[in-house]
Amino acid sequence: MQDQLRTRYELHQVQSGSMPWQQSKGKQVLWIGCSDSDYDELETLGLQPDQVLEYRNLGNMVTDDLSCRATLGYALEQLKIREIVVCGHYGCHIVQGSPNPGLPEPWSKNLDVVRSQHTHRLDQVSGQERDRTMVELNILGQVQNLSQAQNHEVKVFGLVYDRASKTGYQITEAAC
Amino acid sequence: MQDQLRTRYELHQVQSGSMPWQQSKGKQVLWIGCSDSDYDELETLGLQPDQVLEYRNLGNMVTDDLSCRATLGYALEQLKIREIVVCGHYGCHIVQGSPNPGLPEPWSKNLDVVRSQHTHRLDQVSGQERDRTMVELNILGQVQNLSQAQNHEVKVFGLVYDRASKTGYQITEAAC
Repeated sequence: MQDQLRTRYELHQVQSGSMPWQQSKGKQVLWIGCSDSDYDELETLGLQPDQVLEYRNLGNMVTDDLSCRATLGYALEQLKIREIVVCGHYGCHIVQGSPNPGLPEPWSKNLDVVRSQHTHRLDQVSGQERDRTMVELNILGQVQNLSQAQNHEVKVFGLVYDRASKTGYQITEAAC
Repeated sequence: MQDQLRTRYELHQVQSGSMPWQQSKGKQVLWIGCSDSDYDELETLGLQPDQVLEYRNLGNMVTDDLSCRATLGYALEQLKIREIVVCGHYGCHIVQGSPNPGLPEPWSKNLDVVRSQHTHRLDQVSGQERDRTMVELNILGQVQNLSQAQNHEVKVFGLVYDRASKTGYQITEAAC
């Protein structure tokens, strides 16, 4: 089952020191994270506070929202940042396999889009595994949104964080 | 000069243990912080990761932006959070005494509004003191925006963080 689910993307464990931003100082990473996260992902991944411009919203979404566009514009044009991380996390109360009725509707539609794109895949799993899969698919979806939304030569990393084990994984699309 | 500037608001140092959220567990604080911050304010103030729903944008703004409205809605309606912190920080590259030409225009207008409301006060100071005053005035402005934007019985705290000394201050409006 696990293999079937992950044929189109792969997870690779990342550690402090294994990402390209470890070697230099100054704000070089735009971090798009989740409001519901426990915010120790950066520490675990070895990022120093002054290396990061941090944008957090419900579900680490890349949207056409003004605050998101302004943050991207400032990061790319002014700070010349060329590395962007979209980081979700397992155990998220916002990004779940099934719609969260507590989310305001205009915003929950962003997640509905991801969910509807992967109905077949999500329907193959249930419970916690379904939630975890949705977290991963959402990260991939936001990475794709980013790639479409900007014209700069930036590297976009999709990461998922597992607080229980204090472990981060990079999600990459895999050749079919 | 310092007294003249601060006749309408006061700064009181806060420490881990001096804020009301220290005694209980679970997400009880909506934290509206700045993308440019060094994100150790929460630790310094004694907040645990799972106590906080964290929203960060450029300049810790409370706007009519969809992501901000959605976060407020989720925090108040779903999580029943009744304590909101707006936290800015000295040394901010986004919130400054003079307009930052690197900010995308639609977003920079949010700060222009605060700046224009306090032209007289800001014109009395210059350099770093002007920047620090603008950080404080912006926090107060966002606290006021919040108070106007929601009907729930919430406590809104305006905090400013000084990373150089790892010190936080609560900003409160003072009787004239």
